[in-house]
Amino acid sequence: MATSVDLNADLGESFGAWKLGDDEAMLGLVTSANVACGFHAGDPAVLLRTCREAAARGVRVGAQVSYRDLAGFGRRFIDVTPEDLTADVIYQIAALQGIAQAAGTTVSYVKPHGALYNTIVSHRDQAAAVAAAVTVVDAGLPVLGLSGSVFFEEARRRGLRTVAEAFADRAYQPDGTLVSRREPNAVLHDPVEIAARVAAMVTAGQITAVDGSVIPVIVESVCVHGDSPGAVEIAMAVRERLLAEGVTLSTFS
Amino acid sequence: MATSVDLNADLGESFGAWKLGDDEAMLGLVTSANVACGFHAGDPAVLLRTCREAAARGVRVGAQVSYRDLAGFGRRFIDVTPEDLTADVIYQIAALQGIAQAAGTTVSYVKPHGALYNTIVSHRDQAAAVAAAVTVVDAGLPVLGLSGSVFFEEARRRGLRTVAEAFADRAYQPDGTLVSRREPNAVLHDPVEIAARVAAMVTAGQITAVDGSVIPVIVESVCVHGDSPGAVEIAMAVRERLLAEGVTLSTFS
Amino acid sequence: MATSVDLNADLGESFGAWKLGDDEAMLGLVTSANVACGFHAGDPAVLLRTCREAAARGVRVGAQVSYRDLAGFGRRFIDVTPEDLTADVIYQIAALQGIAQAAGTTVSYVKPHGALYNTIVSHRDQAAAVAAAVTVVDAGLPVLGLSGSVFFEEARRRGLRTVAEAFADRAYQPDGTLVSRREPNAVLHDPVEIAARVAAMVTAGQITAVDGSVIPVIVESVCVHGDSPGAVEIAMAVRERLLAEGVTLSTFS
Amino acid sequence: MATSVDLNADLGESFGAWKLGDDEAMLGLVTSANVACGFHAGDPAVLLRTCREAAARGVRVGAQVSYRDLAGFGRRFIDVTPEDLTADVIYQIAALQGIAQAAGTTVSYVKPHGALYNTIVSHRDQAAAVAAAVTVVDAGLPVLGLSGSVFFEEARRRGLRTVAEAFADRAYQPDGTLVSRREPNAVLHDPVEIAARVAAMVTAGQITAVDGSVIPVIVESVCVHGDSPGAVEIAMAVRERLLAEGVTLSTFS
Repeated sequence: MATSVDLNADLGESFGAWKLGDDEAMLGLVTSANVACGFHAGDPAVLLRTCREAAARGVRVGAQVSYRDLAGFGRRFIDVTPEDLTADVIYQIAALQGIAQAAGTTVSYVKPHGALYNTIVSHRDQAAAVAAAVTVVDAGLPVLGLSGSVFFEEARRRGLRTVAEAFADRAYQPDGTLVSRREPNAVLHDPVEIAARVAAMVTAGQITAVDGSVIPVIVESVCVHGDSPGAVEIAMAVRERLLAEGVTLSTFS
Repeated sequence: MATSVDLNADLGESFGAWKLGDDEAMLGLVTSANVACGFHAGDPAVLLRTCREAAARGVRVGAQVSYRDLAGFGRRFIDVTPEDLTADVIYQIAALQGIAQAAGTTVSYVKPHGALYNTIVSHRDQAAAVAAAVTVVDAGLPVLGLSGSVFFEEARRRGLRTVAEAFADRAYQPDGTLVSRREPNAVLHDPVEIAARVAAMVTAGQITAVDGSVIPVIVESVCVHGDSPGAVEIAMAVRERLLAEGVTLSTFS
Repeated sequence: MATSVDLNADLGESFGAWKLGDDEAMLGLVTSANVACGFHAGDPAVLLRTCREAAARGVRVGAQVSYRDLAGFGRRFIDVTPEDLTADVIYQIAALQGIAQAAGTTVSYVKPHGALYNTIVSHRDQAAAVAAAVTVVDAGLPVLGLSGSVFFEEARRRGLRTVAEAFADRAYQPDGTLVSRREPNAVLHDPVEIAARVAAMVTAGQITAVDGSVIPVIVESVCVHGDSPGAVEIAMAVRERLLAEGVTLSTFS
Repeated sequence: MATSVDLNADLGESFGAWKLGDDEAMLGLVTSANVACGFHAGDPAVLLRTCREAAARGVRVGAQVSYRDLAGFGRRFIDVTPEDLTADVIYQIAALQGIAQAAGTTVSYVKPHGALYNTIVSHRDQAAAVAAAVTVVDAGLPVLGLSGSVFFEEARRRGLRTVAEAFADRAYQPDGTLVSRREPNAVLHDPVEIAARVAAMVTAGQITAVDGSVIPVIVESVCVHGDSPGAVEIAMAVRERLLAEGVTLSTFS
């Protein structure tokens, strides 16, 4: 399987007085930073600082686009019209492009966040709306998402490059979708177990679902969370395990 | 005096279910559209529609940047730090750049809105913060504002082109600043009177202040409001009067 | 059928610089004002003015509670958890109670708004969450809603009084639910037609659905919209037609 | 001097996914909880949880009212009109009253937050606007604030009870006002030093200003911060030192 993989994390998710995650530590571990765009998290000053730090560390920046929902942190489905969603996503990517440029870097990919991410696994209209937005902004921007999703179908139909990712610390359903965060056991916490799962994903292309079944998984990038307790330890464990397995950590092309 | 002048108006200031102004009519009258950027007004879908209409009419688009204050429509001074303000302005300009590009046009200038506009006439730190933001995004973007303002000083220090504007329907203090909207008589309403004032500004370089004194005014662009009652009639009257005086309406270079 | 009926309208839906509807005119026509609570519309100063005018006209005030969604005007379903929704609704009712008291009146009932209204026709968890919130604030507050809805079941289970309303200007499905606003013909516009429909509802207990079938409808209150074009004319037409039919307009007990 | 003093802290300042402070620990140490009202922090679910915990611990709840400014955490002056400010404060107090009632407790006092707190030390119009709001909601509600402030003048003029507080961990100017948070050394961090300062305030009525001068201070309540690093340790140190000095900790009457 893969001898090289990308490691991505959600960053820039502080807002005003509220801090979330240890962005500085995470930027020393990952190869790609999914930087919030202000709709679920991230005020402009936070985004600018995050992009500057990413630029300084040579970590690539992606736009982590979301529903407009600060109170819900983008984790609640919103039945937004495709027209509004396309405009919302264009706005967010472009805003982060300006911030990234001011920080001496660029937006290199797009990754939907939270409920939007989950929704467009299967919601055709919203998936098409997000893909259309990316295409309009820059048809050369790859999108990160779930392999087999409707979002990937819509993205490819428009000529976008899709990059399949897997989640280091999330439980999977037997059909390859994520267990909802509202369920107990949706999120794994043990760094050793997580690192072993990631190694299996990357080197064997397999993951164990919640029912014990082993399912195939395509992984060009591994998502480690930046905001969960122990996030830094988990990312470190994943990184070290992958390196120990002889896997190179590098951004997707 | 000037044989050519730009006519600008604040547009794209609807938000969700709330409509403000008759953008379609105004776009048939002005040469430059100061399009809101989402911080005081303008959700992304509104901005996209406004930029598309501006593109279709050949009206130039500028970024109307503001304090983050939907409830106050950007009309209340906020003591934001220069660092936060710079990031807020970069974010807004860039977001509108992406929207404008999606609409087939570009952001050609920057104009601060409301309380921010008034504040940076004299507030050095905030003026510098806005000028720095424009410079970082694109040092080739002209800024619209008040001649003699600290904002213009800071903009020129950074090599930005400044474009002096005057307000068609606003009362002026003898020192050339605007009468606050909280004062009675801050806003003029009679189209004929307004058109005559604008003609005097543009052809004679003069305006009559609230105390009756005649003061000099430099005008490269005239701002007509899009959201006041009778806005369209006023813009029409101004436009016709200027044309009658032999003034050409065209965007500043 | 009914010889007396309540006439309600959504009011207080302006926000900052954005005006919506002609509240003053509507307050001269209706018997109950569903005043927004700040989550989909209505900043506190707007709410205070609206409650004062309602008090001056002797119009009863109800709390029009909503999802937290200014950009979507509360018209988009949000998959909020029941716990969060209960807290959101308590907060909104209580906030308006304080505003109403400051205006010399009180909150006399609760009416969910927009997408929340439509959702809890059938969504058990959200319906229970809203009913629980009302019960906690004041178990004596009646709730306005759709007869036969899950919301009414949940409200009655908790001992709340339910008041069945019908919409003057909305098209109905054969099953008694509303046609979505995203459909064409969801909203009727002809005052004469609307007034005739309302007369049939109130005096005969019947309404004609979009497929032409005549369905029974229970109506203790008739909702006339305050924000659609021609809202005042429609409310006037409805009011006059009902009076002409010998129906008394008065608040539900 | 005082043999009894109140200990208050700002709580309920989390928002959605963002946590701030260790409310649970703080509620075991203080006698009064200044609970946010949603305008600078605190979504309704957070407020409900905080009020429930306060009720369970027998800690009194106060309404911590603020400018509407989530992005700035209420720490930025906003030039809001007195009319809007009065409505904003009524709305906030009332919303928290409903939440508190749902949690089995009540709002027992009002304390302005952040920039609003600082502004109304000297800003007559805004001070009057806040005092008017409290009076309208419940003229029996005491207000916490700075002794000698214009806010206290306006509150007393309206018959409100004023409760003078001092800040455990903030540096003071020689004139008794706080050093701005934008200055270095505005906030003290050493628990032992802070505890000693508080002991001197409460038992001797004195505090040492930044220039070394010893100034008199009236203290009916001591504010310990809940959100600074080491907040819990500081509150513990203050509490223990006061108890060691023979001071009783109890809510103001």
